[in-house]
Amino acid sequence: MKFTVKQIATLLGGEVAGNDTLAITGLAKIEEGKPGDISFLSNLKYESYLYTTQASAVIVDRSFEPRKPVFSALIFVENSYSAFTRLLEEYHKQLSFARVGVEQPSYLGENCQIGEQHYRGAFSYIGRNCQLGNNVKVHPHAYVGNNVRIGDNTIIHAGARILDNCVIGQYCVIHPNAVIGSEGFGFAPQPDGTYKTIPQLGNVILEDFVNVGSGTTIDCATLGSTIIRTGAKLDNLIQIGHNVEIGKHTVIAGQTGISGSTKIGDNCVIAGQVGFAGHLTIANGTKVGAQSGVGKSIDEEGTAINSSPAFGLKESMRSLAIFRRLPSLEQRLSNLEKKNESEKKS
Amino acid sequence: MKFTVKQIATLLGGEVAGNDTLAITGLAKIEEGKPGDISFLSNLKYESYLYTTQASAVIVDRSFEPRKPVFSALIFVENSYSAFTRLLEEYHKQLSFARVGVEQPSYLGENCQIGEQHYRGAFSYIGRNCQLGNNVKVHPHAYVGNNVRIGDNTIIHAGARILDNCVIGQYCVIHPNAVIGSEGFGFAPQPDGTYKTIPQLGNVILEDFVNVGSGTTIDCATLGSTIIRTGAKLDNLIQIGHNVEIGKHTVIAGQTGISGSTKIGDNCVIAGQVGFAGHLTIANGTKVGAQSGVGKSIDEEGTAINSSPAFGLKESMRSLAIFRRLPSLEQRLSNLEKKNESEKKS
Amino acid sequence: MKFTVKQIATLLGGEVAGNDTLAITGLAKIEEGKPGDISFLSNLKYESYLYTTQASAVIVDRSFEPRKPVFSALIFVENSYSAFTRLLEEYHKQLSFARVGVEQPSYLGENCQIGEQHYRGAFSYIGRNCQLGNNVKVHPHAYVGNNVRIGDNTIIHAGARILDNCVIGQYCVIHPNAVIGSEGFGFAPQPDGTYKTIPQLGNVILEDFVNVGSGTTIDCATLGSTIIRTGAKLDNLIQIGHNVEIGKHTVIAGQTGISGSTKIGDNCVIAGQVGFAGHLTIANGTKVGAQSGVGKSIDEEGTAINSSPAFGLKESMRSLAIFRRLPSLEQRLSNLEKKNESEKKS
Repeated sequence: MKFTVKQIATLLGGEVAGNDTLAITGLAKIEEGKPGDISFLSNLKYESYLYTTQASAVIVDRSFEPRKPVFSALIFVENSYSAFTRLLEEYHKQLSFARVGVEQPSYLGENCQIGEQHYRGAFSYIGRNCQLGNNVKVHPHAYVGNNVRIGDNTIIHAGARILDNCVIGQYCVIHPNAVIGSEGFGFAPQPDGTYKTIPQLGNVILEDFVNVGSGTTIDCATLGSTIIRTGAKLDNLIQIGHNVEIGKHTVIAGQTGISGSTKIGDNCVIAGQVGFAGHLTIANGTKVGAQSGVGKSIDEEGTAINSSPAFGLKESMRSLAIFRRLPSLEQRLSNLEKKNESEKKS
Repeated sequence: MKFTVKQIATLLGGEVAGNDTLAITGLAKIEEGKPGDISFLSNLKYESYLYTTQASAVIVDRSFEPRKPVFSALIFVENSYSAFTRLLEEYHKQLSFARVGVEQPSYLGENCQIGEQHYRGAFSYIGRNCQLGNNVKVHPHAYVGNNVRIGDNTIIHAGARILDNCVIGQYCVIHPNAVIGSEGFGFAPQPDGTYKTIPQLGNVILEDFVNVGSGTTIDCATLGSTIIRTGAKLDNLIQIGHNVEIGKHTVIAGQTGISGSTKIGDNCVIAGQVGFAGHLTIANGTKVGAQSGVGKSIDEEGTAINSSPAFGLKESMRSLAIFRRLPSLEQRLSNLEKKNESEKKS
Repeated sequence: MKFTVKQIATLLGGEVAGNDTLAITGLAKIEEGKPGDISFLSNLKYESYLYTTQASAVIVDRSFEPRKPVFSALIFVENSYSAFTRLLEEYHKQLSFARVGVEQPSYLGENCQIGEQHYRGAFSYIGRNCQLGNNVKVHPHAYVGNNVRIGDNTIIHAGARILDNCVIGQYCVIHPNAVIGSEGFGFAPQPDGTYKTIPQLGNVILEDFVNVGSGTTIDCATLGSTIIRTGAKLDNLIQIGHNVEIGKHTVIAGQTGISGSTKIGDNCVIAGQVGFAGHLTIANGTKVGAQSGVGKSIDEEGTAINSSPAFGLKESMRSLAIFRRLPSLEQRLSNLEKKNESEKKS
C-alpha cells in the first residue's frame, strides 16, 4: 500500500486536519503506530495514545474533539471504526491479489487454460488439462495435479497440494501446506490379519468462498466426491475423511477430525479438536463444543452438543459440574452408609 | 484408463449384451454414471437406476434379468460386485504407477542409484548417496535427503519429506506433505529454567506395505531407529514421536499422537485422536477407542480400551452412561439425605 | 563425521587402549554398534554388550576394568555418559550447519541481504526485501515470503513456510512443513448466515532459540504480532491462533491447539493434545496434563491443571478415579434406596 493521507480521506469520505500529503504505507493499532502507519481512535479509553502515537495519521469520529495537541494528521469520518475496517479490507484485498505474472522456474503441463491476471510463483506445478479462471493466484511450491478446475479469484498458497481431478470454486483460499484430494484411509481387513487397499478414485469438490486452513487435509471420495459447500470455513490442521460433505456456511475450528462418509449440515458451528465418527448425518445449525466426540447422528436442527461422547450441551454442563464434585458425592454416600449401618446396630 | 467394453468383459470373463465397442474412460456409482463410465448393479435396491443411468456400460450378475429396456451395454459376470472391485483395483494400480520419466527441473545429488520405471516429478529433490528401487515414484516437490534407501514400487507423493538416513521398504505409499525422519522433541531442562537440545541422530525405518497419511509426522530416533513395521497403516495428521515402534498390520486413524519410545504391538486397531504417553508397551491386538488417552502399558493381547485416561472398553461404557445421569444420581442421593434427616427429627 | 579414535580421545580428554587410528563415522548404542561407530558404556547392566559389540570404539569410565577381552578400542574418560553426550552434541551441531552454498535452481527476490556461511537449497524461495543473518540454512523447498528477517544460526527445514513480514530470531529451528504467519481464522458472522473475512494483516515474531515442530502452524496476528518468546519449544502438529503469545522457555507437546489472543506465560509445561480457548491468560509455570481442555484463565503461578474442562490436577485425579468406579457408586446408592424402602414398609 502506498497512498497519501488525502487519498485515503477521499476514499473514506472524510476531512483532514493536518498534513494531508504524508505517505501511508501500513495499518497499525494506535499504541503501536509508526511513521507511515495509519491508525484509528474509536473507544475513548485509548484517547491518551492519540497524543503520543507515532502514526502519521489517525482516523477519528467527526464528533471527536482533541483535548491536547496531536502530531498525527487526523481524518474525521462518521464512524472511525467502520472506516478503519473498510480500509483494512481494501488493503487486504489489494495485498491478496497484488501478485501477477509468472516467476521462473515454474511448471505448466500440456493442454491447460489459464485466465487473466493470474500469478504462478516460482516452483509452482500445474499438471495436464487444468482450467484456471481469472485472477487465480498459485503461490510458490503449490502443486496442482492433472484435470483440476479452479474458479476465478481463488488463491492457492505456498505448498498447498490439489490432487488430480479436484474442482475448486471461486473466491476460495487454500492456505499453505493444505492437502486436497489425497487418497483416503480405506483398507479392507483380510482373513490373515493383513489389509488390502481399497482404491480411492473420486475427487474433492470445493464450492465458492471456501476457506481451507494451513495443513488441513481433505481426502478424495472412494467414488464420487467429497464436497465442501459454499462459504464453509475450515481452520488449520483439520482432517476431512473420504466422501464427507460439509454444508454451506459451516465453520470448523482447528484440529477437528471428520471420519469418512459423515454429512455435516449447513450453518453448523464446530469448535476445535472435535472428532466425528463415520457415516453420521448432522442437522443444519448444529453447534458442537470443543474436544467433543460425536458418535451419533443429530436429527434436530439447531441442537447444541458437547463432551465425549457428545450429548446435549446443557445436560453435559450439569454432568461436568458434578464430575468435579465426585469426591464429595462419594463422601456423602459413605456418610449415609455409615449412618445406616450404625442405626441398624443400635 | 481407455478400454472398450469388450476388452473389459474379456478381462472379467463376462459376456456383453449391447454395444461392446464403446470406449470406457472412468468408473462411477450407477446413480452418477456419465457417458464413458462403467458402473455395476449388485444390490437390487438400486435396480431403478439401471434404466436411467448415463453410464456406457453396467456390470451385472449373470442371474440378473432386466425388467425394462436398458440403454447401457451390460456385462454379465458371476459376481458383479467382485468384478467391479477388481476393475477398481486394476485401474487404481495403473493410475498409481502411470507416471514414468523425469520432469525438469528436478534435483539429483551425487552417487545415487535409481531403478527402472521410476518417476521424478518437477521440483523433486533427491540428496546424495540414495538408493531407489524399481518403479519408485517421487512426485513433484517431494524431498528425499541424503543416504536414503527406498524399496521397489514405493510412491512418495507431492511435498512429502524423507529426511537423511531413512529407510523405506517396498510398496509403501507416503502421502502429500507427510514428514518422515524430522528431529524429535528432545529438550533437557536446565537449572536456570531453559532447555538444552538433545541431539536426535537416529533415523526412521518403514518396512514394506506401510501407508503414511497426508501431513503425518514421524520423528527420527535419538539414536537407533523409529520403526513402522510391515503392513502398518497410518492415516492423516498423526504424530509419531522418536524411538516409537508400530507393529505389523496395525492401523491408526487420523490425528492420533504417540509419544516417544512407546512400542505398539502387531494387529492393533487405534481409532482417531487417541493420545499415548511415552515409554509404554502395548500388547498385540489392542483396540483403542477414539479420543482415548492411554497412560499405561497394556500387557494382555486383544484388550479393548477406551476413555481418557483409558481403561477397559466395557467398564468405560458403563461409567460414561452413568456420567450422563450424574444429575439424577445426585438427586437420588439428596432425596436419601433428606429422608434420613427427617426420620432423625421424627 | 569422520575422525580417528585418537582425535576423539583428544577432544574428550581421554586415553585410548587399542587401535587409535581407526576411523569413526557414526554414533550408536552399544548393542547396535557397527564397524565405524563409536559407542559408550556407562550403566554396567549393559557390560556384556562390550564384549560382543561391532563398534570400532567404546567410551568407558576411567574406573572401569574389563573382565574379558574387548575387540573395540576403548577411550577412558572421567564420565563416559557426559563424554558421549558431548560427542553427540558436537556431531549434531556439525551436521546441522554442514550445508553451505547455493544449490540451483533456487529463487531469491530483489533487495535481500544474506549473511555469510548461508545455505540455500534447491527449490528454496526467498522473496523481496528479506534480511538473513550469518549461518542461516534455508533447506530445499523452504518458502520465505517478502520482508522477512531471520537471525544468525537459524535453520529453516525442507518445506517450511515463513510468510510475509515475519521476524525470526537467532538459533531457531523451523522443522519441515511448519507454517509461520499464515492468515488466521477470522470470520465475522453476517445477518444472512454467511461469513465475512476479517483481514489478517499482522505478522509472527519468533524470538531466539525457538523450536517449531514439523507441520506446526502459527497464524499471523490480525494487527500487530503473534509472539513466541525466547527459548519456547513447540512440538509437531501444533496450532497457534492469531495474536497468541507464548512465554519464554515454555514447552508444548504435539497436537496441542491454542485459540486466538490467548497469552501463555513463561516456563509453562503443556502436554500433548491440549486445547486452549481464546482470550485466556495463563500464569507463568502452569502445567497442563495431556488432552486437557483449558477454558478459563489461570492466575496463580505454578498451577497444575488437568482434564476437559481442566481443573486442579489433584482434584481431577480424584474425580477421574471415582469416574471409573461410577457403576459401583450407583450400586451402593441403589442398595441404600432399597434398604430405605424396605425399612419404611416394615
